[in-house]
Amino acid sequence: MSRSLVIIGGSDAGISAGLRARELDPTAEVTVVVADAYPNYSICGIPYYVSGEVAPWQSLAHRTYADLEAAGLTLRVNTRATAIDVAGQRVAVTDPDGTEELLAYDELVVGTGAHPAVPAIAGVGGPDGLGPAEGVHLLHTIDDTHALMASLTGRSVGSALIVGAGYIGVEMSEALVARGVATTIAQRPAEVLATVDAELGSLVRAEMEAHGVEVLTGTSVTALARTADGQIAATGGGLSRSFDVVVIVAGVRPDVALLVGAGATTGAGGAVVVDETMATGLPHVWAAGDCVITHHRLMGLTYLPLGTTAHKQGRVAGANAVGGHARFAGSVGTQVVKVFDLVAARTGLLEHEAVAAGFRPVTTQTSPNDHKAYYPGAQPITIRVTADADTGRLLGAQLVGRLGSEIAKRADVFATALFHAMTVEGIADLDLAYTPPLGSPWDAVQMAAQAWSREHRPPSIDALPSVPSRTDPLIKEKTP
Amino acid sequence: MSRSLVIIGGSDAGISAGLRARELDPTAEVTVVVADAYPNYSICGIPYYVSGEVAPWQSLAHRTYADLEAAGLTLRVNTRATAIDVAGQRVAVTDPDGTEELLAYDELVVGTGAHPAVPAIAGVGGPDGLGPAEGVHLLHTIDDTHALMASLTGRSVGSALIVGAGYIGVEMSEALVARGVATTIAQRPAEVLATVDAELGSLVRAEMEAHGVEVLTGTSVTALARTADGQIAATGGGLSRSFDVVVIVAGVRPDVALLVGAGATTGAGGAVVVDETMATGLPHVWAAGDCVITHHRLMGLTYLPLGTTAHKQGRVAGANAVGGHARFAGSVGTQVVKVFDLVAARTGLLEHEAVAAGFRPVTTQTSPNDHKAYYPGAQPITIRVTADADTGRLLGAQLVGRLGSEIAKRADVFATALFHAMTVEGIADLDLAYTPPLGSPWDAVQMAAQAWSREHRPPSIDALPSVPSRTDPLIKEKTP
Repeated sequence: MSRSLVIIGGSDAGISAGLRARELDPTAEVTVVVADAYPNYSICGIPYYVSGEVAPWQSLAHRTYADLEAAGLTLRVNTRATAIDVAGQRVAVTDPDGTEELLAYDELVVGTGAHPAVPAIAGVGGPDGLGPAEGVHLLHTIDDTHALMASLTGRSVGSALIVGAGYIGVEMSEALVARGVATTIAQRPAEVLATVDAELGSLVRAEMEAHGVEVLTGTSVTALARTADGQIAATGGGLSRSFDVVVIVAGVRPDVALLVGAGATTGAGGAVVVDETMATGLPHVWAAGDCVITHHRLMGLTYLPLGTTAHKQGRVAGANAVGGHARFAGSVGTQVVKVFDLVAARTGLLEHEAVAAGFRPVTTQTSPNDHKAYYPGAQPITIRVTADADTGRLLGAQLVGRLGSEIAKRADVFATALFHAMTVEGIADLDLAYTPPLGSPWDAVQMAAQAWSREHRPPSIDALPSVPSRTDPLIKEKTP
Repeated sequence: MSRSLVIIGGSDAGISAGLRARELDPTAEVTVVVADAYPNYSICGIPYYVSGEVAPWQSLAHRTYADLEAAGLTLRVNTRATAIDVAGQRVAVTDPDGTEELLAYDELVVGTGAHPAVPAIAGVGGPDGLGPAEGVHLLHTIDDTHALMASLTGRSVGSALIVGAGYIGVEMSEALVARGVATTIAQRPAEVLATVDAELGSLVRAEMEAHGVEVLTGTSVTALARTADGQIAATGGGLSRSFDVVVIVAGVRPDVALLVGAGATTGAGGAVVVDETMATGLPHVWAAGDCVITHHRLMGLTYLPLGTTAHKQGRVAGANAVGGHARFAGSVGTQVVKVFDLVAARTGLLEHEAVAAGFRPVTTQTSPNDHKAYYPGAQPITIRVTADADTGRLLGAQLVGRLGSEIAKRADVFATALFHAMTVEGIADLDLAYTPPLGSPWDAVQMAAQAWSREHRPPSIDALPSVPSRTDPLIKEKTP
């Protein structure tokens, strides 16, 4: 008897679950309920379609519809799951034509993802709120993307305001500049890209400004209103200007309605609580991705929605749904963003996160070169290493440097070190690759770690075991 | 009473030892005996000086003479150590003016490095052998480099033969092509860069050939002779041609004469045996770098002379010489080379090395993209993953890809995984950085690992614990 698996959600978590289930059990019947018409799209790629670098939009699909069906997934697109009958092992769905239907399952995987957060801005949200028709956009789905592109191409767009300077906001500023749009980005926090410390955020800001982005930090947009000539007037925090288009990218909230309605528990960030097997506690119901909490190897339970994590959690859920015994090994919070010709990455914890997790973090910033200075083109990488003052355990690393300086994979070396709970001192022991055009005998990663040690664990002979020293003074005997 | 430390050797190991000793014990009196006039030079950078990319040659110094003295090292350049009196804790040296002298020490660190290997080629070696004056060069020191540059610039050089297609040979082929020299490279093995498997060596060869290098593999040069018009005739293995310059780069042999003379033991590769503290077994005598064996985390004791390792070993020796308790954590054999617009890297073991170390290695080759295919400029990285068929333990990885594909630091992710004895399956658990322009939700490193698992650990429901399956068939109840 083959297993029947229903998956709700056609993005990273759901598709990963389905593919893994079929890989482990090719007899499993896997049905994926997809709310829109776009299964397995790369949401992270949207800014590069908006910029014009990616075309057509269909190429944003990680896999085509045909790929997914060839892998054995039955796709039910434009189909909304409306309720889970846990005891009856059935999901109620609404088909594209409005028909309601019950899908029976042996095992259910829920990957409903997240909603874009809507900040408290007058004129936004509610039945009378400004929307895509007026040039005010949220950006989370392919439908959102099509609406934005309609705004950008259907009329003359000279100016845009981005509300929110996190990853997507920063990437969208690059995309809009690439389209020739005069771009302003505004947010309340004092520096862009709050996922890194302000010392590095300021480097990102400088790169954005160097490419013509107007960056307004400490600027809380409080109201949007349509002007007589069809623009959007934005006010708040000293801003009072009109723009042709407004894009609001203020983070996401987990989409938990379906699971909560079925009796699931919520935890960090309002996300659904799962254990490391991705079990929800509801019989035969698994969940993964942006709708669930994240097990973090340093912080414990948190909410940190990322595509990489959704892939991993989905793979675990899919394996377990067909009888496997997989466990999500936990995130260390690794993230990277390209900002024009700069790359910013981080992994692990910022100091305030580390304090909350019970550590005593201290941080050292240094700027080793990406490769030997004598070889042409060497560029500094600004690296902040955070570690525990008592134990020397590595807690986090943040890096900003030029595109081409292998920033992303240097972050991954730190991430792998964090995964293994290494000390900062231990990083010097790693056998990392060196050739003058690409590195140094001590890689930049190691130089940054050694700088932390020099500052926070001052080498001292006092800390060393004493050895007997020769009692006679240094002699230099000339011999004939 | 301050310690007196004498260091023999002014290259990576010796200088690292001296700097670390002074860092830990600023009162230590540290004297470095340097055989030539060039302490702390980057030997790895020689090809980039020959190519013209680095100038002047002095910029190849990791640190200047003044830097080293400022760090508290007393340099004795052009000074040869001729004997160690272990019982008397004294080193005999010959000063630049020929005077012999005895230097007393509390602790001695020996970093005599290696000699270039001279292959059995008629006309090379011995008192009558061809040398720099005739345009036949070994390449290991700054003096060697000056001699080669004199050959290349002092007369019209149209053609060059490189004997040996290892790292330095390959790099030198690029350097000579950059100088406009018609360059031939010849070696006995069947494929270039034997440090990677032939499947990847062939990619390196193709890159060299695409840039105009004539690559002759399976070609053992057996004789060199001076021709009437001042060229060098090379014969052997089907080759019979004349060249203006010949560069022999056939690996190195540990320079152990001084230590062996003092009673040290030799082991793998003829190198001096040391323990993980870099102790030689001779009282108060430490050794590090290319003259000693290498502790390898997968192979045990071997000989693998690398600059990165010399730095680490030297740092350990320097710490212990002032009473520390450092240990060399062991190499995993990480190496990388840039070849024109290609980068080749490896870490861990090749299959034959793994077999010798008692593993049952199997290898999978795959070519994931460096970043999402939809973002412009995606390039495949050819990756070979070797792991143990019984345990799934990662044993090695080899990568070849384009410059800009973060090959070196992707090798470092594998290297860090090897350091921690991870399984191939475990690599999927790593939280690696992703953004579409720089990676994938499963990084190339993880895709390569997953390919190994698919080939060698076929996923099967049989391997999974069984879970009760619903006994009723899949039902789809239409409701009104």
